[in-house]
Amino acid sequence: MEIKRRTTRRIMIGNVAIGGGAPVSIQSMLVTRTADIVASMAQINALHQAGCELIRIAIADEQDAQAVEALKRQSPLPLIADIHFDHKLALTAIAGGIDALRINPGNIGSEANVREIVAAVRERMIPIRIGVNSGSIHPDLLRRYGLSAGAMVESALQHVHILERLSYHEIKISVKASHLGLTLDSYRLLSQRCDYPLHLGLTEAGTEFKGMIKSSIALGILLSEGIGDTIRVSLTAEPEREIAVAQALLQTLGLRRGLDIISCPTCGRTRINLITLTQQVEDALKHLADMPLTVAVMGCAVNGPGEAREADYGIAGGEGEGLLFAKGRIVGKYPEQVLVRELVKLIEEHSGDRS
Amino acid sequence: MEIKRRTTRRIMIGNVAIGGGAPVSIQSMLVTRTADIVASMAQINALHQAGCELIRIAIADEQDAQAVEALKRQSPLPLIADIHFDHKLALTAIAGGIDALRINPGNIGSEANVREIVAAVRERMIPIRIGVNSGSIHPDLLRRYGLSAGAMVESALQHVHILERLSYHEIKISVKASHLGLTLDSYRLLSQRCDYPLHLGLTEAGTEFKGMIKSSIALGILLSEGIGDTIRVSLTAEPEREIAVAQALLQTLGLRRGLDIISCPTCGRTRINLITLTQQVEDALKHLADMPLTVAVMGCAVNGPGEAREADYGIAGGEGEGLLFAKGRIVGKYPEQVLVRELVKLIEEHSGDRS
Repeated sequence: MEIKRRTTRRIMIGNVAIGGGAPVSIQSMLVTRTADIVASMAQINALHQAGCELIRIAIADEQDAQAVEALKRQSPLPLIADIHFDHKLALTAIAGGIDALRINPGNIGSEANVREIVAAVRERMIPIRIGVNSGSIHPDLLRRYGLSAGAMVESALQHVHILERLSYHEIKISVKASHLGLTLDSYRLLSQRCDYPLHLGLTEAGTEFKGMIKSSIALGILLSEGIGDTIRVSLTAEPEREIAVAQALLQTLGLRRGLDIISCPTCGRTRINLITLTQQVEDALKHLADMPLTVAVMGCAVNGPGEAREADYGIAGGEGEGLLFAKGRIVGKYPEQVLVRELVKLIEEHSGDRS
Repeated sequence: MEIKRRTTRRIMIGNVAIGGGAPVSIQSMLVTRTADIVASMAQINALHQAGCELIRIAIADEQDAQAVEALKRQSPLPLIADIHFDHKLALTAIAGGIDALRINPGNIGSEANVREIVAAVRERMIPIRIGVNSGSIHPDLLRRYGLSAGAMVESALQHVHILERLSYHEIKISVKASHLGLTLDSYRLLSQRCDYPLHLGLTEAGTEFKGMIKSSIALGILLSEGIGDTIRVSLTAEPEREIAVAQALLQTLGLRRGLDIISCPTCGRTRINLITLTQQVEDALKHLADMPLTVAVMGCAVNGPGEAREADYGIAGGEGEGLLFAKGRIVGKYPEQVLVRELVKLIEEHSGDRS
């Protein structure tokens, strides 16, 4: 799928580029208490292992803010401090080496507070995410626009203008809602109104199951329109699950390459246990997850060989035995019990040739 | 979300209308051997319970075709026979009372075979789905167009023209691929080229996890553009899972109303176990799944009350206790242990008022 990505300014969060043609990056947020260094580091490392690229942490009090220094010393990933209302916490996080802030400058009191923050971030070009949620729009804007994309975007741009007046442009923006239509409309409008990089997400997406579906639809639609520079899939689940969904999403959209296992739904024609077989293939190829390959697992002779033609490698199952394919050509026929082993061997041999 | 659905002709599969403004219907396919009546009926009933509206069955041989009569006698849902190449099997299925066929008239041999089928379906206006898969395009078209939307659509329309020449228009069409971009482009092109109702799906969507994401993106994008009259979410998993995904997808897009539970991802500010709480709410409200309500489960005081304002009912959790909301107003404060019970009581009381 050929996506024409919208042109945005580029910011840097630590060593991760966002916007300006950089790959769409994946982020998540700790669910630990930030000040609990041991628990927080364990989760940061788990997220890193899972493929997360940026991590947000909630700074709810002075203890959390003080913890930034220790976390930054140990974290393999850039950290973003999520702060509401209290600019002192932001200053402590900046002093601790934080890589980015999520803070809305219109909500931190006096102009002096804003100037103090901007002076502190300017030195290291620390980016600030302006994050507007449908639940936290100013009542004045709600009266004027209703709960609409107009209100969301106007609210975000008011915060942006505060930074622009101080000539600070290291900005990314999010306009999240839990409602799909409002989320889509808000990001579309925002992307017309400015060229800052955008952080995509839904708020309150729901349980893992519903959240996966809702986020896939919303982020899928926006990314396919070229909108979005970094994403968070919010799930009420362990944060590692968010990463797996985000990766599969980017891969499906062709925004990230990797191993793609396609498999047919079973049907009355299938004479092999395809659910088990597909799972076995997925497990057996885990170590090749980064390979830009398509592997097809097919259950029958009707669509099997045809579909397998599109894949780099494939299995088409029959009664007790199956065919192996490479680039659409049959390369062997094996009993069911050794089919997966032979597939893995075949791919490893070929991929060895490539490297 | 306001979707402007494309105008299509209407066909009837049993008592289920497809196209012409009818609600987008959900279908799945049996994975049992069709001729195994006991197993097939068990799966038909399970799918019916899960909310499936149309069921496709594979007719691979004469035994399967003969089984149609017994299945039709017992099935609470319309049945669609999936037949490749053999028009005699189609005739047997029609005699057995089948509600629709999936058969490509260009693949069943002579013109006489096609005439025989059309004569048989015409009497009861039995619809025929033309189903083109990226893996089964005629080599001539592949040579002319490459593997492209043009080849997919041309292939489908060649089959359609065979029926049109016999003045038969009870048709729906699918153009499925496993590749996202090809699927989107094919359906978009097809929807410009004809006004038959469209059956949406991907082939070989993958394991349950990847398939959910891929189908949500593909079907989400197309349905949001107004394309699609009936859907199948193909998963290499038990077919009931396909129904759950399809329902959540349609609900998210606003194409079907029902209970919507939104919940925030937990973060460092959360002082309650939100994953457990959300799951409890989901379980406790199962019996109200058809109610067109939004229920918010929030973990903190920052976004909680604001987001809960958009919902019909909500909980915003605090330390060991939480607030209950109705239409954005606080209606009570309860200890964590009784919060869900009180929420259910509140909703049941109010929903009783409505009915």
